[in-house]
Amino acid sequence: MRILIIGGGGMVGQKLAHNLALSGTLGNRKIAELTLADAFAAQTLSSTANFPIKTVVADITNPVIAQSLITNKPDVIFHLAAVVSGEAEANFEKGYSVNVEGIKNILEAIRLTGNGYMPRLVFTSSVAVYGGPYPEIIHDDFHLQPRTSYGTQKAISELLVNDYSRRGFVDGVSLRLPTICVRPGKPNKAASGFFSNILREPLVGIEAILPASKSATNYFASPRSAVGFLVHAANLDTSVLGDNRAMMMPGVWGTVGDEIDALRRVAGDEIVALIKDEPDPVIEKMLSNWNFPDITSARARALGFKAENTLDEIIQVHIDDELDGKIPGRSK
Amino acid sequence: MRILIIGGGGMVGQKLAHNLALSGTLGNRKIAELTLADAFAAQTLSSTANFPIKTVVADITNPVIAQSLITNKPDVIFHLAAVVSGEAEANFEKGYSVNVEGIKNILEAIRLTGNGYMPRLVFTSSVAVYGGPYPEIIHDDFHLQPRTSYGTQKAISELLVNDYSRRGFVDGVSLRLPTICVRPGKPNKAASGFFSNILREPLVGIEAILPASKSATNYFASPRSAVGFLVHAANLDTSVLGDNRAMMMPGVWGTVGDEIDALRRVAGDEIVALIKDEPDPVIEKMLSNWNFPDITSARARALGFKAENTLDEIIQVHIDDELDGKIPGRSK
Ligand SMILES: NC(=O)c1ccc[n+]([C@@H]2O[C@H](COP(=O)([O-])OP(=O)(O)OC[C@H]3O[C@@H](n4cnc5c(N)ncnc54)[C@H](O)[C@@H]3O)[C@@H](O)[C@H]2O)c1
Ligand SMILES: NC(=O)c1ccc[n+]([C@@H]2O[C@H](COP(=O)([O-])OP(=O)(O)OC[C@H]3O[C@@H](n4cnc5c(N)ncnc54)[C@H](O)[C@@H]3O)[C@@H](O)[C@H]2O)c1
Repeated sequence: MRILIIGGGGMVGQKLAHNLALSGTLGNRKIAELTLADAFAAQTLSSTANFPIKTVVADITNPVIAQSLITNKPDVIFHLAAVVSGEAEANFEKGYSVNVEGIKNILEAIRLTGNGYMPRLVFTSSVAVYGGPYPEIIHDDFHLQPRTSYGTQKAISELLVNDYSRRGFVDGVSLRLPTICVRPGKPNKAASGFFSNILREPLVGIEAILPASKSATNYFASPRSAVGFLVHAANLDTSVLGDNRAMMMPGVWGTVGDEIDALRRVAGDEIVALIKDEPDPVIEKMLSNWNFPDITSARARALGFKAENTLDEIIQVHIDDELDGKIPGRSK
Repeated sequence: MRILIIGGGGMVGQKLAHNLALSGTLGNRKIAELTLADAFAAQTLSSTANFPIKTVVADITNPVIAQSLITNKPDVIFHLAAVVSGEAEANFEKGYSVNVEGIKNILEAIRLTGNGYMPRLVFTSSVAVYGGPYPEIIHDDFHLQPRTSYGTQKAISELLVNDYSRRGFVDGVSLRLPTICVRPGKPNKAASGFFSNILREPLVGIEAILPASKSATNYFASPRSAVGFLVHAANLDTSVLGDNRAMMMPGVWGTVGDEIDALRRVAGDEIVALIKDEPDPVIEKMLSNWNFPDITSARARALGFKAENTLDEIIQVHIDDELDGKIPGRSK
């Protein structure tokens, strides 16, 4: 089978590619070819896979380029390419261009291929499709009321994936990802980046700034779980989904305070001491529109999607997958 | 004030134009100019208004033409232009082009005008944004799960109107219209047209075909109510809406059987006898995905939107507004 990862140079795309390279299969099918497409040069994978891994620099906002990605009819397409929330809010046009026109171009390229071509498309939506006022707990049929342009663009994409699937042009699944934490790599400028920064930096002995209050909430899953969701979605029997192809993925609800408590349990006081309070009114304001209650993710859980159960586990996954099981920030 | 009706040549657009021509004001403000834009030549109004009424042939799928409609900065824009449900299902590309690209072009033209230009935009969404499985009664926070391309396109448009409003580019309100009944004019090819046909045709003594079962349900409001919704929305204090600018308008829930009972009460057995059962499996199948429960429309009702309370009233409005208060189909 041929696999295409659009946005394959991003954080989740790279993790997914490594996983596929290692396993050599998706479900029970052998992988014949993996293509990583990204607006930026996708990193080459260091792992030695049993199949060719191509990287393509491709900007999906260009419909001709989007079409070129579909020419060899990949069997499974992971659509991860996106402008993230902070950037979509700061750059209105770019957000709509990448997050709406981009996926529309891919869906159109698939539809216009015709001749019975109907690939599995796994699209990464986001918990950002939700907005308040909230019920006591968010069930799967809670309405989409995004409070950001990014969330709006994800909600529109879900609607498109549903309609193209209902019409038989594609076999789509939209996964509303929790905040992926601990995000590896450098601290990024995403407004919500601090939820990862306050764990990742202290673990390696670097100070991290906490710009929000300890009561700020989020719904978390590890990068390892994100890859698990994507692989599970690629193999899912979509006939049980009906016309609603979108689902909130499981995760762990918690506050910043809960994150800090978990970090203390896993890594100790010395590590926690590296978190410095520096309240930022802009971020506080953003979060006040955003503080959501717990989420059941009942539909996804029933379909076998799995995530961590505690923040402690999420931190341990980071230590195992990124830090070789060690906590370099500890003095001994 | 300057008013623009996009889709001003359509059924609701013409009714609205007549109403504005007659009243001369919108809210407390005098109308200085009314423009009716439509892909087809909008009918000229017979009424003698106190202000100029322009008609423009304009296809809003062309961004340059969309922009030309906004050049003189109308204060209130009614966006009614649409490809209706049957056509959007039959012609996938045309539906997305008019119902999504069209409104996006208008929103972009408004946004790019800048300089503090932020007109009131009243957009006509539809009850078709809903889809099953349904709760016992549809509340305002029921999620959008459309089962048609038309419903998908309306849901996407609502999301766009919300986001452009939140960002301060436009002051939008999206009205989810019930099925407008009795639709005046000739029977049209809309799959749901029979809900009107079985009332309108018998009232003038013509046979009407009922292609569906008597248990088929719908949520109805008269054309007069539709105009009332639009005028009320143009004058609404949108500061109370928060970030969710979309609302289900009030209406009367009923089955085809309820429609027939109401027709009997208002017009008698002789008229009802003109309805002929001719079940159509295609329409039956469409309706089976569609049979929705009652709808509260609580938010709109609380904001002062008003519709009829019974199907009898809806039929009487048609007799008064279209048939001069008479029932021509009666033998005496
Ligand atoms: N990481 C999270 O916490 C999180 C949470 C919810 C949803 N998501 C979604 O999951 C997906 C993957 O997230 P991520 O953390 O790996 O994001 P990322 O920013 O690391 O990766 C996104 C990739 O898309 C690429 N891209 C941007 N514009 C493009 C274009 N025009 N053409 C082609 N490629 C383009 C970028 O170059 C980048 O490599 C995204 O869709 C994101 O919105 C992520
Ligand atoms: N009538 C109903 O029962 C009902 C129910 C729910 C929602 N609505 C919505 O209310 C609005 C008005 O409904 P209506 O019954 O008057 O519909 P209609 O079909 O009578 O009028 C729509 C008008 O839009 C025009 N139009 C189509 N494409 C265009 C384009 N590219 N550029 C410019 N104009 C274009 C058409 O020429 C037509 O005159 C529509 O948006 C419809 O979707 C109607």
